[in-house]
Amino acid sequence: MRVVVVGGGAAGIGAQGGAKGAAPDAEVILYTEYEDVGYSPCGIPFVHGKEIDKFENLFLQDKKFYEDAGFDIRYTTKVESVDTSKQEIEVAGEGTVKYDRLVLGTGWNYRDPGVPGSDLAGLHYVKNIRRAMEFDKVLDDAKVAVVVDASPIGVEMATAFAHRGLETHFVDPGGWPLSEVGDPEIMEPVEESLRELGVHMHMQTTVKGFLGDGTVNAVATSNGDLPADVVVVATHKTPNTELATAAGIKTGSTGGIIVDDGMATSANGVWAAGDCVEIPHGLTKVPINGLSGSHAYSQGKTAGVNAGGGERAYQAVQVPWGMVAGTWTIGGVSFGETLATALGIPHVVGLADGISKARYYPGWSRIRVKLLVDPQARTLVGGQMVGIEGIKERADFLAMAMRARIPIDDIAWMENVYSPPIGALNEPMALAAQNALGKL
Amino acid sequence: MRVVVVGGGAAGIGAQGGAKGAAPDAEVILYTEYEDVGYSPCGIPFVHGKEIDKFENLFLQDKKFYEDAGFDIRYTTKVESVDTSKQEIEVAGEGTVKYDRLVLGTGWNYRDPGVPGSDLAGLHYVKNIRRAMEFDKVLDDAKVAVVVDASPIGVEMATAFAHRGLETHFVDPGGWPLSEVGDPEIMEPVEESLRELGVHMHMQTTVKGFLGDGTVNAVATSNGDLPADVVVVATHKTPNTELATAAGIKTGSTGGIIVDDGMATSANGVWAAGDCVEIPHGLTKVPINGLSGSHAYSQGKTAGVNAGGGERAYQAVQVPWGMVAGTWTIGGVSFGETLATALGIPHVVGLADGISKARYYPGWSRIRVKLLVDPQARTLVGGQMVGIEGIKERADFLAMAMRARIPIDDIAWMENVYSPPIGALNEPMALAAQNALGKL
Repeated sequence: MRVVVVGGGAAGIGAQGGAKGAAPDAEVILYTEYEDVGYSPCGIPFVHGKEIDKFENLFLQDKKFYEDAGFDIRYTTKVESVDTSKQEIEVAGEGTVKYDRLVLGTGWNYRDPGVPGSDLAGLHYVKNIRRAMEFDKVLDDAKVAVVVDASPIGVEMATAFAHRGLETHFVDPGGWPLSEVGDPEIMEPVEESLRELGVHMHMQTTVKGFLGDGTVNAVATSNGDLPADVVVVATHKTPNTELATAAGIKTGSTGGIIVDDGMATSANGVWAAGDCVEIPHGLTKVPINGLSGSHAYSQGKTAGVNAGGGERAYQAVQVPWGMVAGTWTIGGVSFGETLATALGIPHVVGLADGISKARYYPGWSRIRVKLLVDPQARTLVGGQMVGIEGIKERADFLAMAMRARIPIDDIAWMENVYSPPIGALNEPMALAAQNALGKL
Repeated sequence: MRVVVVGGGAAGIGAQGGAKGAAPDAEVILYTEYEDVGYSPCGIPFVHGKEIDKFENLFLQDKKFYEDAGFDIRYTTKVESVDTSKQEIEVAGEGTVKYDRLVLGTGWNYRDPGVPGSDLAGLHYVKNIRRAMEFDKVLDDAKVAVVVDASPIGVEMATAFAHRGLETHFVDPGGWPLSEVGDPEIMEPVEESLRELGVHMHMQTTVKGFLGDGTVNAVATSNGDLPADVVVVATHKTPNTELATAAGIKTGSTGGIIVDDGMATSANGVWAAGDCVEIPHGLTKVPINGLSGSHAYSQGKTAGVNAGGGERAYQAVQVPWGMVAGTWTIGGVSFGETLATALGIPHVVGLADGISKARYYPGWSRIRVKLLVDPQARTLVGGQMVGIEGIKERADFLAMAMRARIPIDDIAWMENVYSPPIGALNEPMALAAQNALGKL
């Protein structure tokens, strides 16, 4: 049996491992357009920001590791088309290749900014590590940077440029950073901290075009032109389904490939995983996509296992998330109020400010927790947090509480660790839940 | 209506607040033997260790706060006896005082070390803040300290003395610190770090007596005498039930006062809360006591609300815990393997070493997670962890997972935040759960 995997990101690598595990005797071939696999693109902003010494650190495995593990990886090799009825693909330089099972992990693209000048040289998109290495050298001589769109990657890059000492301009049409998903109570401290780091915040500002003679040297906005030595475009992620749609594989309302809970597509013998697919949200069952590398890896694993003849289901997601933003860490699960309101999901808000250690213990930090509670079911709809310590762990807690439909009363009166250097008498999530209970 | 509360610790303060809340018109009188209420005794070791500047910081509220809130607190006033049939107490200096409802929050005592010399002056027991202030002055001139018993307070005090630069000797009969509750895989790094901090570890060593002419100047052990300028006795906590037992109120197998889920004792009109009571363990229903200040406060609140005519139940406990120990933070929930084995609870162990951030992100730390899983129910029996970051939050997660009987499979394949500066691709608790699944 031959399993072909298209894409060398987290989904593709997960799929190759899953297929090999389920069918050790199968021939598993992975095609990637790029020069590398087995690195963490999520680390790129932190090399630019100098928190991480060098790009080489982002490689988790070298090529020899995959060779030794018996993985057949074809680098810088583009798959040009798929024929699902003949079960074959066209590969640049290889010609027609037959497959028994196919897994698509074709990832995502940045949404086209759709303004004049989008084809100028010098516009940088954070994605591939080799381009990042080249870009980092450009940064050494740059003085002024513009970051377009306060998406998660945009926020990480603006923070990184501030750390690096660049004059940084941050442009976004929303009222605050991450306004499409983040609530103002959570994002206000982030915006303030970005200003404190020296970032020039141009919120409620639309990009009208990119200016330059061949190479970009300014960004035209609704509030005037911003000259720039470097421009990062951090528009939203859209699923890369070029191969799939050309092959007649069905996509859904988000533009992502439709898959069942085994990650199988509408085409016989074809699975898909990662940012190119859409999956149901755990609470609403609404299809969503563009999640994290760990989601992609886990979906890839599921797709690979099933392509290899095994049987594994991928559960609907609650989407715990977290990131460093300015001098804060933010995170949450599922929906904030902005999205819940947009989706018409009934909810009551519980808001509380707590602290990370005993108030008398030096080094404590504030943690603001906002929980959304279904007033009928009295369970979580979602939550968002801003703080310094323990945000990732609390987001994981809330994701488990959502999945298990823990009553909000049980969160309000949860047992928590109290020890001065590591935890306050009152857990901030419990305080927010108590606040919500007061309104129910 | 008059509600009398005996004890000014977390349980008593919680009870007074609970009673006032449930019955705003009631007269609520709190008696305490001590000079103060409203401070955090849990912070004392960290003032000795110089992490916290001064003892005054441990006061959360001053006396005026309680006066302004209409709380009648009688300081340095000892309640000498209780007559539950007449509903009255004898108060030193006040005589007989009638009550309608009584709440006992009489706390705990250190277990008598039961060796010769236990009555020598200079033996220090960590408890009262005024004694701690005096002791801290003694520490300024001390060179050599002995800490007796590697209990939680003992570990905190040994760590504090090391931070303060004292030659510190730590004596305990067990094979490793906290051996009665902590498993060796968790406590070995702690023991090693205490050594690195310069603490002389005398494990498997029994105290034979305290030596000195009126004032202690050495500790006699099974491995020879240890001269000492200061000696801290950190034997285990035992419930202080003197008043209750003299009044015929029933105590249980741990020596603590027996209470129902509303914190009512066997005597009509009498409630009890905090370290003087025993409460059921969430999994085994075995009675336990000697928990944290947050447990005491919450129990006190429940007792006070019910004494005030309200209705509140206190849930069985899963006991998440956490503390700084040497250079590590340790924590867990419910039982470790040592206790589970002693209690004959069937279990499978899942053990894993994970990390707190992406491995390429500077400043990551190791997190070892050990989970105990019921092989039939496939749910948690308990867990223990050692690490630096996120221990308290993970212990809270595990406590919620135990209470909600989350299947171990759901922990193994939990969704977790992945972002390089705050969380690794693989959550350490999930890795430990996967390890356990492999054995099931």
